[in-house]
Amino acid sequence: MREVAGREDGRGGGRLMAAEMAEQPAVLARLAARAQADAAAVRAVVPAALAGVMFVARGSSDNAAVFGRYLAELTAGRPAGMAAPSIYTRYHATVDWRGYLVVALSQSGSTPEILSTCQAVRAGGATVVGITNEPGSPLAAAVDLVLTTSAGPERAVPATKTVTAQMLLLTVVATALGGSAQPGTGLMQTPAAVAAILADPGPMAGLARRWQGIDRLVVVGRGLAFPAALEIALKVKEVTGILAEGISTADLRHGPIATVYAGAPVLLVDAGGPVAPDIAELRALLGRRHAAVASLPVPAGLPEPVQVIAATVRGQQLAWALAQARGADPDAPAHLTKITATS
Amino acid sequence: MREVAGREDGRGGGRLMAAEMAEQPAVLARLAARAQADAAAVRAVVPAALAGVMFVARGSSDNAAVFGRYLAELTAGRPAGMAAPSIYTRYHATVDWRGYLVVALSQSGSTPEILSTCQAVRAGGATVVGITNEPGSPLAAAVDLVLTTSAGPERAVPATKTVTAQMLLLTVVATALGGSAQPGTGLMQTPAAVAAILADPGPMAGLARRWQGIDRLVVVGRGLAFPAALEIALKVKEVTGILAEGISTADLRHGPIATVYAGAPVLLVDAGGPVAPDIAELRALLGRRHAAVASLPVPAGLPEPVQVIAATVRGQQLAWALAQARGADPDAPAHLTKITATS
Repeated sequence: MREVAGREDGRGGGRLMAAEMAEQPAVLARLAARAQADAAAVRAVVPAALAGVMFVARGSSDNAAVFGRYLAELTAGRPAGMAAPSIYTRYHATVDWRGYLVVALSQSGSTPEILSTCQAVRAGGATVVGITNEPGSPLAAAVDLVLTTSAGPERAVPATKTVTAQMLLLTVVATALGGSAQPGTGLMQTPAAVAAILADPGPMAGLARRWQGIDRLVVVGRGLAFPAALEIALKVKEVTGILAEGISTADLRHGPIATVYAGAPVLLVDAGGPVAPDIAELRALLGRRHAAVASLPVPAGLPEPVQVIAATVRGQQLAWALAQARGADPDAPAHLTKITATS
Repeated sequence: MREVAGREDGRGGGRLMAAEMAEQPAVLARLAARAQADAAAVRAVVPAALAGVMFVARGSSDNAAVFGRYLAELTAGRPAGMAAPSIYTRYHATVDWRGYLVVALSQSGSTPEILSTCQAVRAGGATVVGITNEPGSPLAAAVDLVLTTSAGPERAVPATKTVTAQMLLLTVVATALGGSAQPGTGLMQTPAAVAAILADPGPMAGLARRWQGIDRLVVVGRGLAFPAALEIALKVKEVTGILAEGISTADLRHGPIATVYAGAPVLLVDAGGPVAPDIAELRALLGRRHAAVASLPVPAGLPEPVQVIAATVRGQQLAWALAQARGADPDAPAHLTKITATS
């Protein structure tokens, strides 16, 4: 770690991203303490005859949304899915959204297409919950209920503390959809699990040295860990320019496995739960293909959603360390800005 | 084209894939002729109070399903989405699917997880339409209505004729969801549009020579053309091992644009429609980044869904030509089998 710490203090950028990553245990503890009140607020707006739950977001928020989509279907007992903003912003469809709970996530609360989509689905009868880090943003005016990630200003371009905060809030939304008054005990274990990972940067610094020169990467998860794979891939893309693709074990085996030749780098995200055997089976298959496989070290024995959040933080560490090893500045990657003005 | 034709006749594989690609106009004409009857059959099973429409598939069928998901929301006027099989096959959730039309796609009709998911959602009250190339397969017994792609046996591992057949059938399903008795005139234009592309292999052979040595590729579309981008990326992955990622213009701009450095290959899928300005705007942005941008030549002036199917065929041509140029065998890529037994 000396090498990486040296760069952090001196030559390279990445101080902002590292500082914001380090704030995560405090942010998560704040949200866990507020969970019961947030769950009650969500319960108060869930449609009585729930038709379905849909999520709308872009970028890192979209990866958190995929986590929410899995949790929501598991707890709500009604189908969940991901909205396609272009249906509203480009095709201007008129759709009957009555009976739906829509959860819109935007760190800035200012992405034009997320706002437009919220307005369209709300006009169609949906109840919309917004999750944002900016309670004074335009998103707050476009939804029925706002939950704030309360992570403090995020100044590094790659989102970190706001993403894990969104993920924790989504476990609270899922609890509410399940009709429970009391968010699970896992919530309270999250800050410590994340703190333990942040205190142990060695494994990812080592992996970053090994993978310093790669130009492509496949990141694999399944079930609740699939969105962590998506988010880790995005973080690596953003801060290093490596073409990292997040994919599920099942999708990988339906064709894309052809891209995993001998020596090709593959990162496995095993966050436990009933999908763990899928990862184990894939590890054996990738071994036979002589791929360069690495696994994220994630604490065991905690509830699966906590382990998924912990894995996401491991991925932040890897992205940060890869950027340092490659001499890139993770705080402000080339041509990226904090608020992406897609419409 | 001499170079590619020479390989086809002699050294390399790819004869099966080329032959099956060539059958597409005939397959599509057969389905277009049957469209009115298929639409009536779908209309007869759509739930009276439609809560939503969900699609379930893997691999190429999943990319066709994304096309169906966009079309369905546009015509049905109710939200649509993509199912997550692991919720049923791994987490064994009990979910109330009453009011939902689920469309399950499987070329073979034998993928275990698609069958399990169909059984679970049907047990939960969904009406399930199955789309398969094998009417005698287990899928037929697990659904309320079967539509067959009637494409004849597909022996090459990369799916081609069954994918465009699925896409055409999904336009028929969307017509039915819109309550129309008469499928659009676009249907009848599809076989000729595809035939015109198949008769013009030169542009993709030229692009394949230019990109013969690439190891990564970003394929970009938006709206209805987004699933074509996904499918083209998958086809390139399967037959060449190139890590090709399909992505929407909006998602690319939320971070992954960092992977597009000077000289990085990017393929744009412009199939017209209201998303065409997004592609034009991205083309300008990529030009400023000095990326190696190529666009698929697609006929203009046809209905957008027809142009998306045509673009998908252009992508098949590119994948095939890339495989030829790299000395790979597209008929039977390393370690891939026709029926993927994910569960």
